[in-house]
Amino acid sequence: METTIQHISRSPITNKEYPIPSSVNDKAGIDDFIALHPGKKVVVVQGLGFVGSVMGLVVANALTEEYAVIGIDLPTASSYWKICSINEGVFPILASDPKISLYYENSRQKNNYYATYDPYVYSKADVVVVDINLDVKKQTGAGNNLEDYSVDLTPFKKAIESIGNNCRPDVLVLVETTVPPGTSEKVVRPLVEDCLQKRELPITELKVAHSYERVMPGPKYIDSIQNFYRVFAGTDDRSANEAEKFLRTVIKTDEYPLTRLGNTNATEMAKVLENSFRAMNIAFMVEWSRFAEEAGVDIYEVVNAIRMRPTHKNIMLPGLGVGGYCLTKDPLLASWAKMNLFGSSEGLQQSEKGVRINDKMPLYAFEYLQTQFNGSLKDKKVLLLGVSYLNDVGDTRYTPVEGFYDHLEIEGAITSLHDPHVLYWEEKDIWINQQLDELLKEQYDLITITTGHKDYRNNPQLIDKLLAHAPTFIYDTIGVLTNEEIKTLSTRHTVKVIGRGDL
Amino acid sequence: METTIQHISRSPITNKEYPIPSSVNDKAGIDDFIALHPGKKVVVVQGLGFVGSVMGLVVANALTEEYAVIGIDLPTASSYWKICSINEGVFPILASDPKISLYYENSRQKNNYYATYDPYVYSKADVVVVDINLDVKKQTGAGNNLEDYSVDLTPFKKAIESIGNNCRPDVLVLVETTVPPGTSEKVVRPLVEDCLQKRELPITELKVAHSYERVMPGPKYIDSIQNFYRVFAGTDDRSANEAEKFLRTVIKTDEYPLTRLGNTNATEMAKVLENSFRAMNIAFMVEWSRFAEEAGVDIYEVVNAIRMRPTHKNIMLPGLGVGGYCLTKDPLLASWAKMNLFGSSEGLQQSEKGVRINDKMPLYAFEYLQTQFNGSLKDKKVLLLGVSYLNDVGDTRYTPVEGFYDHLEIEGAITSLHDPHVLYWEEKDIWINQQLDELLKEQYDLITITTGHKDYRNNPQLIDKLLAHAPTFIYDTIGVLTNEEIKTLSTRHTVKVIGRGDL
Repeated sequence: METTIQHISRSPITNKEYPIPSSVNDKAGIDDFIALHPGKKVVVVQGLGFVGSVMGLVVANALTEEYAVIGIDLPTASSYWKICSINEGVFPILASDPKISLYYENSRQKNNYYATYDPYVYSKADVVVVDINLDVKKQTGAGNNLEDYSVDLTPFKKAIESIGNNCRPDVLVLVETTVPPGTSEKVVRPLVEDCLQKRELPITELKVAHSYERVMPGPKYIDSIQNFYRVFAGTDDRSANEAEKFLRTVIKTDEYPLTRLGNTNATEMAKVLENSFRAMNIAFMVEWSRFAEEAGVDIYEVVNAIRMRPTHKNIMLPGLGVGGYCLTKDPLLASWAKMNLFGSSEGLQQSEKGVRINDKMPLYAFEYLQTQFNGSLKDKKVLLLGVSYLNDVGDTRYTPVEGFYDHLEIEGAITSLHDPHVLYWEEKDIWINQQLDELLKEQYDLITITTGHKDYRNNPQLIDKLLAHAPTFIYDTIGVLTNEEIKTLSTRHTVKVIGRGDL
Repeated sequence: METTIQHISRSPITNKEYPIPSSVNDKAGIDDFIALHPGKKVVVVQGLGFVGSVMGLVVANALTEEYAVIGIDLPTASSYWKICSINEGVFPILASDPKISLYYENSRQKNNYYATYDPYVYSKADVVVVDINLDVKKQTGAGNNLEDYSVDLTPFKKAIESIGNNCRPDVLVLVETTVPPGTSEKVVRPLVEDCLQKRELPITELKVAHSYERVMPGPKYIDSIQNFYRVFAGTDDRSANEAEKFLRTVIKTDEYPLTRLGNTNATEMAKVLENSFRAMNIAFMVEWSRFAEEAGVDIYEVVNAIRMRPTHKNIMLPGLGVGGYCLTKDPLLASWAKMNLFGSSEGLQQSEKGVRINDKMPLYAFEYLQTQFNGSLKDKKVLLLGVSYLNDVGDTRYTPVEGFYDHLEIEGAITSLHDPHVLYWEEKDIWINQQLDELLKEQYDLITITTGHKDYRNNPQLIDKLLAHAPTFIYDTIGVLTNEEIKTLSTRHTVKVIGRGDL
């Protein structure tokens, strides 16, 4: 049968395959685990993705309290392996942060981090930390134009219901997911209350709070959770107090004091506003970097001059585009909430515009190259250096390189890919060649730098290798090449940089 | 004759009237002044406004060289008094910075700062610093909508020609005016060269450079010129070198190193990009502060929470609008240059949009108040606290309070104005009452805080005075009232704050 393939979940880390159980029952596993930790509070982390799996690790290594931590995710092809992996001793995320393995080793020794797929676990929880995804579905038209988008709360609501259908009436539900502002108050709390009432349980002891992490995958992964400022609020005072008590045991609040806001709408808004601010500041630079190209100006030297002003430190640099899970969707989440949860007649038009502009950035780079190759890149051999969206991290979620790569593929270019941090490009189902030397033995018509990895920055070996390559067109979409390097490379190649006019 | 009024220039500081000379001849005055300073280089500062008059002062108090400084402006009603004032010992700008009077006193003792209106002065100049205005003319339609705008270079070109028609062929022309990117290279240098050629002089020794100040009128007026980072570039290497030499004598470059950019297009772009960045960040917050109002969120606490992230320190707060000479026009100057000096088919749409949004901010505050007063403010007595655009400074140039005030006037409200820093509101020709106690003896239907002066911030006396006032509507358009103050005032008044929902 064709559907059998769905019954396997494969780890991209170990390549091990796990048959997905046909019925959900891990009661014994959960009970056994909890029995090992008498007297300890049970913290359930819902969602074992980039945030949840590491948040679980941080809670298992809490600063002032010993918790029994259980991560829960769905028994699906894309998630079930994470559950098995945690229980078998292989942490499901590859990260350059050495603290990840340190913390994981520690939790293995204490045996205080278990993973499951059985919602029965919520009945044991003192605290449920919600770290599941909440996605925006974009409809794009010609030229990557964002034409429409939708927010479907159904999967999120289902996850909350599975808590409500099992939890104790005095549980603390701490939402960490980036949600449309208004969600904790208007969706989560009413839903859990509803479930409790159907179960004929009281709702007076329920606590629902919201706090957002500022996780940054990379060398400071753990610190970005444990040693960083946290903002939180409760749907009522008791909820806020309980959330605060919990966060104090997990986060280094003496160095990074907690910030308590007036209500959960405010914390939810803060999160999406933060990310919208960033997205908009990137979008703002797009037209300026084109102006710089027209005016024979080096936008990087201009931006560096401006950044000397303390009030202007955060001005952004141009690039290939915007990637990752947050900046590409959070402005839309907020705009959606304004209209759909608060009944406003118009959304956040400026912030939506930021997303629209950013989504088109890879197309701009592609079209620029078309003009440089007499209108078409068909049959051109192209090497892309970098597929991740972030420097020095192997994170390909919503990477702008994807749009750029797609344009090249549709055009009929022959693309090769390199990324020192990405073994397997999940979204494209492509294995990435890690051997740059081998790749550079081929001839290319075009070599583009598409991620600002250290390997491509201030790397004399790379320059030497490129110099040894037959004359070609080099396009730096990130601005990693220095003036010196450009001068050197230009002796042999045509070198262009986004945001730099010919000087 | 009706035009006689044009023959008088009145100082708003001393009220003294100066008859404007009917013919331009100050040769003797200039020659006598220069004769007092044998061997010193002559620096002419063109334009005696907010920047030029103080730049003159800074050059007269240069750090490592003694200059003979001559300021020049036009013999018009609005400018002639400044010339006379400088020569009579009254500095033409009131400022809270104590260094202003210190530096002026020092220049009086050295007798090294003279002012004139005679272009003959350019023939004596080693350096001409261009500090004249370059304005954008906005055409606005209904509801303050920016419908069109134009940049007329004619007055600027005329000023440059008056240099070219008189200067030595080896002069350094240092443009400090905020100009459309491309101006030094495409307008200033060709114009001066043209004049020199008509005068049958060589053009090989001419130096044209651009550097922009970051003047901030207020308590650090002098420091914002002398002790701050400077960016500069030349139209050629020699020009850049000469400009650098000059700037090093004037600015504390050991603490604030100079930044030299590749060409003058880059420095000119840096200046307008800086200001566009700021304007756009303000515009970005407009829709978020409305969202906050709808969602019962206090945007100030949200922004303060976000600002804890070093990468997000510069996120702005909402307010009544944007004022001053730079942020209101610089994005348009840049957009105009992109199309008109570099032939691009489209301008900087995002940056223009920022100006459009900001220009409408005062209307939003006015319309909000209309809804609070059953649709109309006709015959309502309204007190405005603050008319300046900037905290603790008496600068009313393009203040957003003007638009707000105009809406109230057109509506038929009865407005009273207070501002501790503005004696005379030049643009409106209104003398401002400085006695708040006296003003508060009147009854008002509405009291609005329109500038964030210290006098209105954390001021228990003001709160007491407001509490003694008959019940009224208080509208804080700046967010200066604290939670405590709002709570206290709400016992008697209706209190609303821009960007804060009812909590």
